[in-house]
Amino acid sequence: MHDAVLPPDPTTVADLARRALAEDRAWHDVTTRATIPPDQQGHGAFLVKTDGVICGMDVVAAVFAAMSPAIELDVLAADGSSVEAGHIAAEVRGPLAPLLSAERVALNFLQRLSGIATLTRRFVDRAAEGGPAQIVDTRKTTPGLRDLERYAVRVGGARNHRNTLEDGVLIKDNHIAAALKRGISVDELVREARMSAPHTLRIELEVTDVATALLAVAAGVDVILLDNMTPDQLRTAVQSLGGDGRVLEASGGVNLDNVREIAATGVHLISVGRITHSAPALDISLEIAAQ
Amino acid sequence: MHDAVLPPDPTTVADLARRALAEDRAWHDVTTRATIPPDQQGHGAFLVKTDGVICGMDVVAAVFAAMSPAIELDVLAADGSSVEAGHIAAEVRGPLAPLLSAERVALNFLQRLSGIATLTRRFVDRAAEGGPAQIVDTRKTTPGLRDLERYAVRVGGARNHRNTLEDGVLIKDNHIAAALKRGISVDELVREARMSAPHTLRIELEVTDVATALLAVAAGVDVILLDNMTPDQLRTAVQSLGGDGRVLEASGGVNLDNVREIAATGVHLISVGRITHSAPALDISLEIAAQ
Amino acid sequence: MHDAVLPPDPTTVADLARRALAEDRAWHDVTTRATIPPDQQGHGAFLVKTDGVICGMDVVAAVFAAMSPAIELDVLAADGSSVEAGHIAAEVRGPLAPLLSAERVALNFLQRLSGIATLTRRFVDRAAEGGPAQIVDTRKTTPGLRDLERYAVRVGGARNHRNTLEDGVLIKDNHIAAALKRGISVDELVREARMSAPHTLRIELEVTDVATALLAVAAGVDVILLDNMTPDQLRTAVQSLGGDGRVLEASGGVNLDNVREIAATGVHLISVGRITHSAPALDISLEIAAQ
Amino acid sequence: MHDAVLPPDPTTVADLARRALAEDRAWHDVTTRATIPPDQQGHGAFLVKTDGVICGMDVVAAVFAAMSPAIELDVLAADGSSVEAGHIAAEVRGPLAPLLSAERVALNFLQRLSGIATLTRRFVDRAAEGGPAQIVDTRKTTPGLRDLERYAVRVGGARNHRNTLEDGVLIKDNHIAAALKRGISVDELVREARMSAPHTLRIELEVTDVATALLAVAAGVDVILLDNMTPDQLRTAVQSLGGDGRVLEASGGVNLDNVREIAATGVHLISVGRITHSAPALDISLEIAAQ
Amino acid sequence: MHDAVLPPDPTTVADLARRALAEDRAWHDVTTRATIPPDQQGHGAFLVKTDGVICGMDVVAAVFAAMSPAIELDVLAADGSSVEAGHIAAEVRGPLAPLLSAERVALNFLQRLSGIATLTRRFVDRAAEGGPAQIVDTRKTTPGLRDLERYAVRVGGARNHRNTLEDGVLIKDNHIAAALKRGISVDELVREARMSAPHTLRIELEVTDVATALLAVAAGVDVILLDNMTPDQLRTAVQSLGGDGRVLEASGGVNLDNVREIAATGVHLISVGRITHSAPALDISLEIAAQ
Amino acid sequence: MHDAVLPPDPTTVADLARRALAEDRAWHDVTTRATIPPDQQGHGAFLVKTDGVICGMDVVAAVFAAMSPAIELDVLAADGSSVEAGHIAAEVRGPLAPLLSAERVALNFLQRLSGIATLTRRFVDRAAEGGPAQIVDTRKTTPGLRDLERYAVRVGGARNHRNTLEDGVLIKDNHIAAALKRGISVDELVREARMSAPHTLRIELEVTDVATALLAVAAGVDVILLDNMTPDQLRTAVQSLGGDGRVLEASGGVNLDNVREIAATGVHLISVGRITHSAPALDISLEIAAQ
Repeated sequence: MHDAVLPPDPTTVADLARRALAEDRAWHDVTTRATIPPDQQGHGAFLVKTDGVICGMDVVAAVFAAMSPAIELDVLAADGSSVEAGHIAAEVRGPLAPLLSAERVALNFLQRLSGIATLTRRFVDRAAEGGPAQIVDTRKTTPGLRDLERYAVRVGGARNHRNTLEDGVLIKDNHIAAALKRGISVDELVREARMSAPHTLRIELEVTDVATALLAVAAGVDVILLDNMTPDQLRTAVQSLGGDGRVLEASGGVNLDNVREIAATGVHLISVGRITHSAPALDISLEIAAQ
Repeated sequence: MHDAVLPPDPTTVADLARRALAEDRAWHDVTTRATIPPDQQGHGAFLVKTDGVICGMDVVAAVFAAMSPAIELDVLAADGSSVEAGHIAAEVRGPLAPLLSAERVALNFLQRLSGIATLTRRFVDRAAEGGPAQIVDTRKTTPGLRDLERYAVRVGGARNHRNTLEDGVLIKDNHIAAALKRGISVDELVREARMSAPHTLRIELEVTDVATALLAVAAGVDVILLDNMTPDQLRTAVQSLGGDGRVLEASGGVNLDNVREIAATGVHLISVGRITHSAPALDISLEIAAQ
Repeated sequence: MHDAVLPPDPTTVADLARRALAEDRAWHDVTTRATIPPDQQGHGAFLVKTDGVICGMDVVAAVFAAMSPAIELDVLAADGSSVEAGHIAAEVRGPLAPLLSAERVALNFLQRLSGIATLTRRFVDRAAEGGPAQIVDTRKTTPGLRDLERYAVRVGGARNHRNTLEDGVLIKDNHIAAALKRGISVDELVREARMSAPHTLRIELEVTDVATALLAVAAGVDVILLDNMTPDQLRTAVQSLGGDGRVLEASGGVNLDNVREIAATGVHLISVGRITHSAPALDISLEIAAQ
Repeated sequence: MHDAVLPPDPTTVADLARRALAEDRAWHDVTTRATIPPDQQGHGAFLVKTDGVICGMDVVAAVFAAMSPAIELDVLAADGSSVEAGHIAAEVRGPLAPLLSAERVALNFLQRLSGIATLTRRFVDRAAEGGPAQIVDTRKTTPGLRDLERYAVRVGGARNHRNTLEDGVLIKDNHIAAALKRGISVDELVREARMSAPHTLRIELEVTDVATALLAVAAGVDVILLDNMTPDQLRTAVQSLGGDGRVLEASGGVNLDNVREIAATGVHLISVGRITHSAPALDISLEIAAQ
Repeated sequence: MHDAVLPPDPTTVADLARRALAEDRAWHDVTTRATIPPDQQGHGAFLVKTDGVICGMDVVAAVFAAMSPAIELDVLAADGSSVEAGHIAAEVRGPLAPLLSAERVALNFLQRLSGIATLTRRFVDRAAEGGPAQIVDTRKTTPGLRDLERYAVRVGGARNHRNTLEDGVLIKDNHIAAALKRGISVDELVREARMSAPHTLRIELEVTDVATALLAVAAGVDVILLDNMTPDQLRTAVQSLGGDGRVLEASGGVNLDNVREIAATGVHLISVGRITHSAPALDISLEIAAQ
Repeated sequence: MHDAVLPPDPTTVADLARRALAEDRAWHDVTTRATIPPDQQGHGAFLVKTDGVICGMDVVAAVFAAMSPAIELDVLAADGSSVEAGHIAAEVRGPLAPLLSAERVALNFLQRLSGIATLTRRFVDRAAEGGPAQIVDTRKTTPGLRDLERYAVRVGGARNHRNTLEDGVLIKDNHIAAALKRGISVDELVREARMSAPHTLRIELEVTDVATALLAVAAGVDVILLDNMTPDQLRTAVQSLGGDGRVLEASGGVNLDNVREIAATGVHLISVGRITHSAPALDISLEIAAQ
């Protein structure tokens, strides 16, 4: 698992940084233009104000680099570090004007990604108390930021589910119901998917009850998505469906209160939408001092 | 205030919808391709699962339109509607395959924007119990989605602050401190800003204590940002700084617990970062039925 | 397998059509501007001059649509049709000037995609004489045209391999050799991949000899890529490695002379690079008549 | 003719390289991420497996540069070099992971462009045995890659025809027929083109018989395109139409079997579509060794 | 010459219109949002305030279409029409808000292009008094708007010179001087250009004295650019260099005062930079009335 | 006012430079390719041929940088310098071929921006003779170049008006008339704007007579736009409307003949459309010498 330490694609990062600065018209900061001379220097400290996991330093670097090559970033807490409130995650120094103009964009990325990494880490740690189940993300990400948010999930210690609709076969309740309408049974469906999807993909099938799950097993699915089941139901499912290298994934309504108990049921994976769609931003400020 | 009902820029919306579908490789949905024939029809209902304010129907429409011109969207709860859990916000019908392939992207937009509108509405309602102060947003938005998120804020009943660094002069503590380092006083700073920024912009100045605020008043600022003050401090500030059409904005650490008391102090505006940076997604699902 | 009939993503198609027309400065066709009045009408017939399989009609439609909404396209041979030399695949009619200006771009797409579909069909047919093995493509596609070329492969009757490096785990000789340098054995490698790659992906491993293949089997790989083996070696591999739902893919140096014999060995898949990287364009001309 | 040595536009090259890497999701190579640690180093050799002419080293350089600034490329066979099977065209060294992830994209460019240069060189050499006629390309190029493919044609020793519909007046049979329908004769057509097209362009006219060609000569065309004529017809055409600096171009059905005889007829130019639309990829592999 | 009536490329036009509206944040017109309700209707008349030639109606149409499909444009003076001050060139009607928000962008295009067409027409008319010489443009256009500005030149009655550095060979004094430094004579230079540039291009050569011009003629150039010559010098040049279909182009310091005399010298073409780089905008306003 | 010296956004500049070079196909300069060997060196001097103010050196630098990293630019007259005819504004040296190929694009930017700066300076100087009024620009800029042209205006010594429709509230005659149609008075309109537009914006209102202006004053507007008034009317307006920090802006038909008298009326700002929409290009040539 060399993956977690690999930073996000620098081309994507540079492009997102430039777009965000343009969206904020950072170069056209009328206040800073009017009040700060170009030669005044400054220093800034990214102050963490709530305990959390840092994520996004590559984007922060790209944001400042796009504003001015004269700004230097000194990362004190690399992505993935747990930082306590009151500590400094990174320092920047250089011309004051571009520091001020880029501040908000840099923070918008850093706070969001750190927020995701922080919440993910909490789910990972809580689940670990229950069992060896891995936390995985979902496709419930912010439009335009999926690569970055999936990176934040890995930084938080979880694992990525499929990235797009193209890199995973996941036959959901809707696919099954639609097939039944046409008189196609679950096992025929699985066979069809097996034949037409790229052979590099496993077949995952969503079930809401053990009976259907047993049909899925008979049909030879590789992964079973156990949706919205109680811990008791999950335990029963694990007993009847586990084995033969079959992967069991729990999903639906997972939160910090129930994730430990779900992990204890013996499922292999627990997918959690809220680590990406509802993670609050981590409270970080940039404390700037002029020279 | 004809503004709130104006939908977001259709060019921007269509572009964001297309990018999000590409990011998800929605057209290349291997599961749906393998399991759903092109001629099977379907119907979907956007089921609201938690009380909230709907926002994002134009984006939802653009997402489905980009997938298939044959999909029809029937909006039951227009943007801005309060919907209770269990109600249907909109229905779609048409070919089942593109319905399924676009589901996640449509929901990702709808849930996020509705989440922002919902949280904003809560702040607006709570503040209204305290006084006539208006809630305003900040630039703490998701990179790439600022236009949409500011729209969601308006839909939630709040008002927009400046959009970019170019359309508002906001002299912050850092600008003031940097000027003092150079031996420039606050009133000189204000005069400089007045002379060089476009004359269409007001001058807003951030203060953390009433003494500085009085200097600002003397310097003729139009708007005073009262940062991180207690309700008592705010009340004092209102008494000493109000009048002459001067606008007073409170900011810093505003939450649902203290917003009513802040509104009661008599400030005109209360800016809240968390309505955009930390709003949880509104719980909405798309219930699909095949035909 | 509803897939083959699904046309390529219309957004991608329209974008590629527009870029190609711009690359050819089709709107600025100095010859046609100088010699054809805007109101002269014309008719064109896509004449197939060598037997082949048609592919690309959606792109042709997008090309003409981008040039003039007044041009009508009448497709006589839908994508996937086998057409003999001398037959007409489609007709266009409308204003003559844009017909002439778009001719080359339309043909560049149609001839290339039909060339791929045609060569693919020949491989598919030849393989079918040997056994039930499926022909699959590779990532050896034209930069910028992968989606279209993979579509042409499906139209030709073959199946797609993984699309990108993200939607398939394929541990190649280089990965294995690099791991051995670090003292990591093949089975450890497989386990690592199993743990860190998305669980929706199968693990495929490339082997060049049966001994390594047996290690791979023990390590629990899902798919084995048998690279550059003789038919005899392949037959031996099938006997010793087949079973348990394990997929066997042959690759390397596959051509129309040996594909039948390879298919007869009992492998499940035969991947062929040349159907995309070396397919000659199908000979098609656009016979235009003025009115 | 300083042209052939001039590499393609670096901005275009860098852009194409980045798009191709994104299309392949090279940064998101799940296999390499899972199996290769970031600090393992590697070395690669581009092994030519069939005799050919190398073309595309600038694109290869751009591909690796976009993946990692730490990768060094050492070009042994510059663009235009003839390389025999078994020789090494270039070497790369640096971090192993990005080497592996960029391998396919680099080869896709290099093999395609070298394939075009190789086939072009064969046409050029074969034609030279017949006479001094120059081989020229056509607009039958891959959509999106025209600049690169035209460069490969020059590298192969041939000359470029017009690039777009804007930089050459070529009155084809269709333009003539359309004019005749309107009662416009060939010489009127030529005069019209002479008056309205930019004066920097010559007037080229396509003829299929000598009689029309004589009309064209009388009308003062600069270049005559002799389409689909037999060598005998071409010889006759050369005798009756040559002189006065008039350029004669043969086209249609030119292949390696007949190009020498066509060159011997005395035409000045022979345009060949297949050097771009049907050149097979040159067989090159990247032999990678880990350290 | 069917060319002048052909409108500019609709894809380019739509793209430029959308970018210009985005640059002006037209959808985010805070004034109109605050003061005009969405259902109020309006009417606008494009009032020409100085005599001139209209150009740009397609762009105006695209601008309004991008703002609102409900706006109707009624063109009274088509591109190329001469309109006297006080007359109406076009009318728009529809929802008032988008009319107001798009007004400036529509006018920015219309006034600039009409300004170019108007000044061009004046040069064309003035030159016609002197002789049959055609006015041609130069590459001295606004970055990003060349296609539109060249269209405006045609609308004004002049002819286009080469569009880019790729569609015309123009050997300038700098090329000649650089060659002489290397010991290359003008005729060798012309021969080199003849051999390596696409054969569809004529060879044009810039001369500043008749002696060099005679060398150029001996070297067989097709077009001679007579730069910065007096009318007397031009007359001499015409006598000594004319004939054999050779084209003579005058350039340098051409203005409305001297263009007639230059046209009277017998040159074929007169290129004028100021019709694009210094044409003042035509004075047009949009008179809007609410309903 | 540190603003004027701040160069334009380097990301925007680099992007515009690259697009302009692509629009001119500068890399594909067939003349230079055919006549200049890659190793010949050259030197160029930007010769100012008419007195003026230089503007655009950053764009010039970006243009040459995009063509070749080997070209060095030595700026002798920084942006904002007044240069007399016959002086050299900058020198370039490096490989001759890219120097020649980029010449026109570099000049197109430099001449246009210097033209704007020069005309602006003339207005500023002329106004200064009349009074302390500041010259401001308008939104009448070239589509796609607004940021650069506003920069040129600042370089010329004037001040920027609002950049877009989003960063200034300017209630024009059309807004007022539309409101009156609905029975809304001017003061209600101002109040509405005050409530819904971002509070960072001042309210500016256009008036054509003093009576309406007095209503506007009563309604509390911050800025009054006095449109198309005579100097006498302006003087009256200044007397009756001045004071209380209210800003008075004159506009409409301002030219070099009347700007001094307008400035003498006591208005604070004079907005001039022609400094951007009708500034003639400054006459600058690039004198190149080969080595």
